[in-house]
Amino acid sequence: MSITLSQTTVPHWTRTLKAMSAMIDKAEAYAESKKIDPSVLINARLAPDMRPLSFQVQVACDQVKLGVARLAGQKAPSHPDTETTFAELRARIQTVLDYVESVSLADVDAGEERTIELKFPQGGFTFKGAAYAHGWVNPNLYFHATTFYAILRHNGMALEKADFLFGLQQ
Amino acid sequence: MSITLSQTTVPHWTRTLKAMSAMIDKAEAYAESKKIDPSVLINARLAPDMRPLSFQVQVACDQVKLGVARLAGQKAPSHPDTETTFAELRARIQTVLDYVESVSLADVDAGEERTIELKFPQGGFTFKGAAYAHGWVNPNLYFHATTFYAILRHNGMALEKADFLFGLQQ
Repeated sequence: MSITLSQTTVPHWTRTLKAMSAMIDKAEAYAESKKIDPSVLINARLAPDMRPLSFQVQVACDQVKLGVARLAGQKAPSHPDTETTFAELRARIQTVLDYVESVSLADVDAGEERTIELKFPQGGFTFKGAAYAHGWVNPNLYFHATTFYAILRHNGMALEKADFLFGLQQ
Repeated sequence: MSITLSQTTVPHWTRTLKAMSAMIDKAEAYAESKKIDPSVLINARLAPDMRPLSFQVQVACDQVKLGVARLAGQKAPSHPDTETTFAELRARIQTVLDYVESVSLADVDAGEERTIELKFPQGGFTFKGAAYAHGWVNPNLYFHATTFYAILRHNGMALEKADFLFGLQQ
Protein backbone atom coordinates (compact mmCIF):
# COMPACT_ATOMS: atom_id res chain seq x y z
CA MET A 1 0.00 0.00 0.00
CA SER A 2 1.52 3.24 -1.09
CA ILE A 3 0.36 6.09 -3.24
CA THR A 4 2.53 7.65 -5.90
CA LEU A 5 2.82 11.30 -6.75
CA SER A 6 1.72 10.73 -10.36
CA GLN A 7 -1.34 8.76 -9.31
CA THR A 8 -2.50 11.57 -7.02
CA THR A 9 -2.10 14.22 -9.69
CA VAL A 10 -1.87 13.39 -13.40
CA PRO A 11 -5.22 11.60 -14.00
CA HIS A 12 -7.09 14.26 -12.02
CA TRP A 13 -5.37 17.14 -13.78
CA THR A 14 -5.98 15.74 -17.25
CA ARG A 15 -9.59 14.88 -16.41
CA THR A 16 -10.13 18.53 -15.49
CA LEU A 17 -8.71 19.74 -18.80
CA LYS A 18 -10.88 17.23 -20.67
CA ALA A 19 -13.90 18.52 -18.76
CA MET A 20 -13.03 22.08 -19.83
CA SER A 21 -12.69 20.95 -23.45
CA ALA A 22 -16.14 19.33 -23.29
CA MET A 23 -17.58 22.53 -21.78
CA ILE A 24 -16.02 24.51 -24.64
CA ASP A 25 -17.98 22.26 -27.03
CA LYS A 26 -21.14 23.11 -25.13
CA ALA A 27 -20.30 26.82 -25.06
CA GLU A 28 -19.81 26.79 -28.81
CA ALA A 29 -23.20 25.11 -29.32
CA TYR A 30 -24.81 27.53 -26.86
CA ALA A 31 -23.43 30.57 -28.69
CA GLU A 32 -24.66 29.18 -31.99
CA SER A 33 -28.14 28.36 -30.69
CA LYS A 34 -28.54 31.79 -29.09
CA LYS A 35 -26.86 33.65 -31.98
CA ILE A 36 -24.27 35.05 -29.58
CA ASP A 37 -20.91 36.06 -31.08
CA PRO A 38 -18.50 33.48 -29.57
CA SER A 39 -16.11 36.27 -28.66
CA VAL A 40 -18.70 37.61 -26.22
CA LEU A 41 -18.35 34.43 -24.15
CA ILE A 42 -14.62 34.10 -24.75
CA ASN A 43 -14.06 37.63 -23.41
CA ALA A 44 -16.62 37.41 -20.59
CA ARG A 45 -15.52 38.17 -17.01
CA LEU A 46 -17.18 37.92 -13.61
CA ALA A 47 -15.90 41.37 -12.62
CA PRO A 48 -14.21 44.12 -14.64
CA ASP A 49 -10.88 43.44 -12.89
CA MET A 50 -11.06 39.67 -13.27
CA ARG A 51 -9.67 37.80 -16.25
CA PRO A 52 -11.77 36.59 -19.19
CA LEU A 53 -12.79 33.06 -20.12
CA SER A 54 -9.87 32.57 -22.53
CA PHE A 55 -7.36 33.37 -19.77
CA GLN A 56 -8.94 30.79 -17.47
CA VAL A 57 -8.29 28.11 -20.11
CA GLN A 58 -4.75 29.31 -20.75
CA VAL A 59 -3.79 29.31 -17.08
CA ALA A 60 -5.47 25.97 -16.35
CA CYS A 61 -3.44 24.55 -19.24
CA ASP A 62 -0.25 26.08 -17.87
CA GLN A 63 -0.85 24.72 -14.39
CA VAL A 64 -1.06 21.19 -15.77
CA LYS A 65 1.74 21.58 -18.31
CA LEU A 66 4.16 23.24 -15.90
CA GLY A 67 3.05 21.00 -13.05
CA VAL A 68 3.97 17.86 -14.95
CA ALA A 69 7.12 19.36 -16.48
CA ARG A 70 8.48 20.69 -13.20
CA LEU A 71 7.82 17.45 -11.34
CA ALA A 72 9.46 15.46 -14.12
CA GLY A 73 12.41 17.86 -14.36
CA GLN A 74 11.65 18.73 -17.97
CA LYS A 75 11.35 21.94 -19.93
CA ALA A 76 7.69 22.46 -20.83
CA PRO A 77 6.60 23.33 -24.38
CA SER A 78 5.88 27.04 -24.86
CA HIS A 79 2.48 28.57 -25.60
CA PRO A 80 2.18 32.28 -26.45
CA ASP A 81 -1.42 32.78 -25.17
CA THR A 82 -2.82 33.94 -28.49
CA GLU A 83 -6.06 31.90 -28.52
CA THR A 84 -9.15 33.89 -29.47
CA THR A 85 -11.61 31.20 -30.65
CA PHE A 86 -13.20 28.14 -29.12
CA ALA A 87 -11.33 25.96 -31.63
CA GLU A 88 -8.01 27.49 -30.60
CA LEU A 89 -8.78 27.05 -26.91
CA ARG A 90 -9.64 23.39 -27.48
CA ALA A 91 -6.45 22.94 -29.47
CA ARG A 92 -4.43 24.49 -26.64
CA ILE A 93 -5.89 21.95 -24.22
CA GLN A 94 -5.15 19.12 -26.63
CA THR A 95 -1.49 20.09 -26.99
CA VAL A 96 -1.16 19.99 -23.21
CA LEU A 97 -2.88 16.60 -22.98
CA ASP A 98 -0.55 15.31 -25.71
CA TYR A 99 2.47 16.68 -23.86
CA VAL A 100 1.41 15.10 -20.56
CA GLU A 101 0.86 11.80 -22.36
CA SER A 102 4.47 11.97 -23.57
CA VAL A 103 5.92 12.27 -20.05
CA SER A 104 6.80 9.13 -18.11
CA LEU A 105 4.87 8.73 -14.87
CA ALA A 106 8.05 7.42 -13.26
CA ASP A 107 9.68 10.77 -14.02
CA VAL A 108 6.76 12.57 -12.37
CA ASP A 109 7.06 10.28 -9.32
CA ALA A 110 10.75 11.07 -9.10
CA GLY A 111 9.86 14.74 -8.61
CA GLU A 112 8.54 14.14 -5.11
CA GLU A 113 11.57 15.64 -3.35
CA ARG A 114 12.65 17.92 -6.18
CA THR A 115 12.99 21.55 -5.16
CA ILE A 116 10.71 23.74 -7.25
CA GLU A 117 11.09 27.50 -7.23
CA LEU A 118 8.42 29.86 -8.51
CA LYS A 119 9.40 33.45 -9.14
CA PHE A 120 6.98 36.35 -9.45
CA PRO A 121 7.53 40.11 -9.64
CA GLN A 122 6.33 40.44 -6.04
CA GLY A 123 8.33 37.50 -4.64
CA GLY A 124 8.39 33.76 -4.93
CA PHE A 125 7.84 30.34 -3.41
CA THR A 126 10.05 27.33 -2.89
CA PHE A 127 8.43 23.90 -2.57
CA LYS A 128 9.33 20.26 -2.55
CA GLY A 129 7.64 18.55 -5.51
CA ALA A 130 4.80 16.94 -3.59
CA ALA A 131 3.87 20.16 -1.78
CA TYR A 132 4.04 22.02 -5.09
CA ALA A 133 1.67 19.50 -6.72
CA HIS A 134 -0.91 19.43 -3.94
CA GLY A 135 -0.48 22.90 -2.47
CA TRP A 136 0.05 24.96 -5.60
CA VAL A 137 -1.04 23.22 -8.79
CA ASN A 138 -4.28 21.80 -7.36
CA PRO A 139 -5.75 25.01 -5.94
CA ASN A 140 -4.59 27.06 -8.92
CA LEU A 141 -5.85 24.60 -11.52
CA TYR A 142 -9.26 24.20 -9.90
CA PHE A 143 -9.47 27.94 -9.27
CA HIS A 144 -9.24 28.66 -12.99
CA ALA A 145 -11.36 25.67 -14.04
CA THR A 146 -14.11 26.76 -11.65
CA THR A 147 -13.89 30.39 -12.73
CA PHE A 148 -14.23 29.17 -16.33
CA TYR A 149 -17.36 27.23 -15.33
CA ALA A 150 -18.74 30.17 -13.33
CA ILE A 151 -18.31 32.61 -16.24
CA LEU A 152 -20.34 30.32 -18.50
CA ARG A 153 -23.02 29.76 -15.84
CA HIS A 154 -23.23 33.49 -15.16
CA ASN A 155 -23.77 33.96 -18.90
CA GLY A 156 -26.82 31.74 -18.90
CA MET A 157 -25.43 28.34 -19.85
CA ALA A 158 -27.13 25.32 -18.27
CA LEU A 159 -24.02 23.49 -17.06
CA GLU A 160 -24.09 21.21 -14.01
CA LYS A 161 -21.33 20.33 -11.61
CA ALA A 162 -21.11 17.00 -13.38
CA ASP A 163 -19.72 18.91 -16.37
CA PHE A 164 -16.94 20.20 -14.14
CA LEU A 165 -16.29 16.74 -12.67
CA PHE A 166 -16.51 15.13 -16.14
CA GLY A 167 -15.13 11.66 -16.51
CA LEU A 168 -15.02 11.06 -12.80
CA GLN A 169 -15.69 7.38 -13.11
CA GLN A 170 -12.93 6.78 -15.62
CA MET B 1 10.96 8.88 -0.16
CA SER B 2 7.26 8.30 -0.08
CA ILE B 3 4.26 10.53 0.22
CA THR B 4 1.40 9.82 2.56
CA LEU B 5 -2.27 10.32 1.90
CA SER B 6 -2.67 12.68 4.84
CA GLN B 7 0.25 14.83 3.73
CA THR B 8 -1.24 15.28 0.25
CA THR B 9 -4.65 16.28 1.59
CA VAL B 10 -5.18 17.48 5.17
CA PRO B 11 -2.91 20.57 5.29
CA HIS B 12 -4.17 21.74 1.90
CA TRP B 13 -7.81 21.22 2.80
CA THR B 14 -7.55 23.01 6.12
CA ARG B 15 -5.58 25.85 4.56
CA THR B 16 -8.43 26.37 2.11
CA LEU B 17 -11.00 26.55 4.91
CA LYS B 18 -8.78 29.00 6.80
CA ALA B 19 -8.54 31.11 3.64
CA MET B 20 -12.34 31.14 3.41
CA SER B 21 -12.61 32.17 7.05
CA ALA B 22 -10.22 35.07 6.44
CA MET B 23 -12.24 36.10 3.37
CA ILE B 24 -15.39 36.06 5.54
CA ASP B 25 -13.64 38.56 7.82
CA LYS B 26 -12.98 40.76 4.81
CA ALA B 27 -16.54 40.36 3.52
CA GLU B 28 -17.88 41.44 6.89
CA ALA B 29 -15.66 44.53 6.89
CA TYR B 30 -16.62 45.26 3.27
CA ALA B 31 -20.35 45.08 4.05
CA GLU B 32 -19.86 47.38 7.03
CA SER B 33 -17.79 49.92 5.10
CA LYS B 34 -20.28 50.01 2.21
CA LYS B 35 -23.34 49.86 4.45
CA ILE B 36 -24.49 46.67 2.72
CA ASP B 37 -26.76 44.36 4.72
CA PRO B 38 -24.54 41.28 5.28
CA SER B 39 -27.39 39.03 4.16
CA VAL B 40 -27.12 40.52 0.68
CA LEU B 41 -23.65 39.04 0.32
CA ILE B 42 -24.48 35.84 2.22
CA ASN B 43 -27.39 35.18 -0.17
CA ALA B 44 -25.62 36.35 -3.34
CA ARG B 45 -25.39 33.99 -6.33
CA LEU B 46 -23.61 34.08 -9.68
CA ALA B 47 -26.74 32.90 -11.50
CA PRO B 48 -30.35 32.47 -10.32
CA ASP B 49 -30.00 28.68 -10.45
CA MET B 50 -26.65 28.59 -8.67
CA ARG B 51 -26.30 28.32 -4.88
CA PRO B 52 -25.61 31.31 -2.59
CA LEU B 53 -22.47 32.22 -0.71
CA SER B 54 -23.58 30.48 2.51
CA PHE B 55 -24.04 27.19 0.68
CA GLN B 56 -20.51 27.41 -0.76
CA VAL B 57 -19.12 27.60 2.78
CA GLN B 58 -21.32 24.76 4.03
CA VAL B 59 -20.36 22.41 1.21
CA ALA B 60 -16.66 23.28 1.38
CA CYS B 61 -16.84 22.46 5.10
CA ASP B 62 -18.59 19.18 4.37
CA GLN B 63 -16.05 18.16 1.76
CA VAL B 64 -13.24 18.52 4.29
CA LYS B 65 -15.15 17.06 7.25
CA LEU B 66 -16.49 14.07 5.32
CA GLY B 67 -13.23 13.68 3.42
CA VAL B 68 -11.23 13.28 6.62
CA ALA B 69 -13.92 11.20 8.36
CA ARG B 70 -14.37 8.77 5.48
CA LEU B 71 -10.64 8.29 4.99
CA ALA B 72 -10.17 7.71 8.72
CA GLY B 73 -13.20 5.39 8.92
CA GLN B 74 -14.99 7.64 11.39
CA LYS B 75 -18.48 9.05 11.65
CA ALA B 76 -18.33 12.79 11.01
CA PRO B 77 -20.01 15.30 13.30
CA SER B 78 -23.34 16.54 11.97
CA HIS B 79 -24.12 20.09 10.86
CA PRO B 80 -27.69 21.11 9.98
CA ASP B 81 -26.80 23.90 7.48
CA THR B 82 -28.60 26.64 9.37
CA GLU B 83 -25.94 29.37 9.15
CA THR B 84 -27.27 32.79 8.12
CA THR B 85 -24.60 35.21 9.41
CA PHE B 86 -20.90 35.72 8.83
CA ALA B 87 -20.23 34.79 12.46
CA GLU B 88 -22.11 31.52 12.05
CA LEU B 89 -20.30 30.67 8.84
CA ARG B 90 -16.95 31.31 10.53
CA ALA B 91 -18.01 29.15 13.47
CA ARG B 92 -19.00 26.34 11.10
CA ILE B 93 -15.52 26.42 9.58
CA GLN B 94 -13.93 26.42 13.03
CA THR B 95 -15.86 23.34 14.16
CA VAL B 96 -14.59 21.51 11.09
CA LEU B 97 -11.01 22.63 11.69
CA ASP B 98 -11.33 21.47 15.31
CA TYR B 99 -12.73 18.12 14.19
CA VAL B 100 -9.92 17.60 11.66
CA GLU B 101 -7.40 18.46 14.36
CA SER B 102 -8.87 15.69 16.51
CA VAL B 103 -8.33 12.99 13.87
CA SER B 104 -5.07 11.06 13.79
CA LEU B 105 -3.14 11.46 10.54
CA ALA B 106 -2.23 7.77 10.76
CA ASP B 107 -5.94 6.96 10.59
CA VAL B 108 -6.28 9.14 7.49
CA ASP B 109 -3.28 7.40 5.92
CA ALA B 110 -4.86 4.03 6.64
CA GLY B 111 -7.79 5.04 4.44
CA GLU B 112 -5.76 4.75 1.27
CA GLU B 113 -7.32 1.45 0.16
CA ARG B 114 -10.60 1.85 2.02
CA THR B 115 -13.65 1.52 -0.22
CA ILE B 116 -15.72 4.68 -0.09
CA GLU B 117 -19.24 4.72 -1.51
CA LEU B 118 -21.12 7.91 -2.25
CA LYS B 119 -24.84 7.65 -2.87
CA PHE B 120 -26.96 10.28 -4.57
CA PRO B 121 -30.58 10.28 -5.72
CA GLN B 122 -29.39 9.92 -9.31
CA GLY B 123 -26.78 7.23 -8.64
CA GLY B 124 -23.46 6.90 -6.88
CA PHE B 125 -19.72 6.42 -7.00
CA THR B 126 -17.37 3.90 -5.47
CA PHE B 127 -13.75 4.87 -4.89
CA LYS B 128 -10.67 3.66 -3.13
CA GLY B 129 -9.67 6.21 -0.49
CA ALA B 130 -6.84 7.84 -2.42
CA ALA B 131 -8.94 8.29 -5.57
CA TYR B 132 -11.76 9.68 -3.44
CA ALA B 133 -9.41 12.21 -1.82
CA HIS B 134 -7.76 13.42 -5.00
CA GLY B 135 -10.52 12.81 -7.53
CA TRP B 136 -13.59 13.82 -5.53
CA VAL B 137 -12.77 15.91 -2.46
CA ASN B 138 -10.18 18.10 -4.18
CA PRO B 139 -12.25 19.21 -7.20
CA ASN B 140 -15.40 19.60 -5.09
CA LEU B 141 -13.71 21.53 -2.31
CA TYR B 142 -11.93 23.91 -4.66
CA PHE B 143 -15.07 24.26 -6.77
CA HIS B 144 -17.02 25.63 -3.81
CA ALA B 145 -14.12 27.66 -2.42
CA THR B 146 -13.61 29.30 -5.81
CA THR B 147 -17.33 29.94 -6.29
CA PHE B 148 -17.32 31.58 -2.85
CA TYR B 149 -14.42 33.80 -3.96
CA ALA B 150 -16.08 34.55 -7.30
CA ILE B 151 -19.37 35.60 -5.67
CA LEU B 152 -17.53 38.12 -3.49
CA ARG B 153 -15.45 39.41 -6.40
CA HIS B 154 -18.55 39.73 -8.57
CA ASN B 155 -20.09 41.79 -5.76
CA GLY B 156 -17.30 44.31 -5.88
CA MET B 157 -14.87 43.05 -3.24
CA ALA B 158 -11.18 43.66 -3.91
CA LEU B 159 -9.90 40.15 -3.17
CA GLU B 160 -6.81 38.75 -4.86
CA LYS B 161 -5.91 35.17 -5.65
CA ALA B 162 -3.53 35.33 -2.70
CA ASP B 163 -6.63 35.48 -0.49
CA PHE B 164 -7.75 32.18 -1.99
CA LEU B 165 -4.28 30.64 -1.61
CA PHE B 166 -3.90 32.10 1.91
CA GLY B 167 -1.23 30.61 4.10
CA LEU B 168 0.48 28.90 1.21
CA GLN B 169 3.89 28.99 2.82
CA GLN B 170 2.74 27.56 6.13
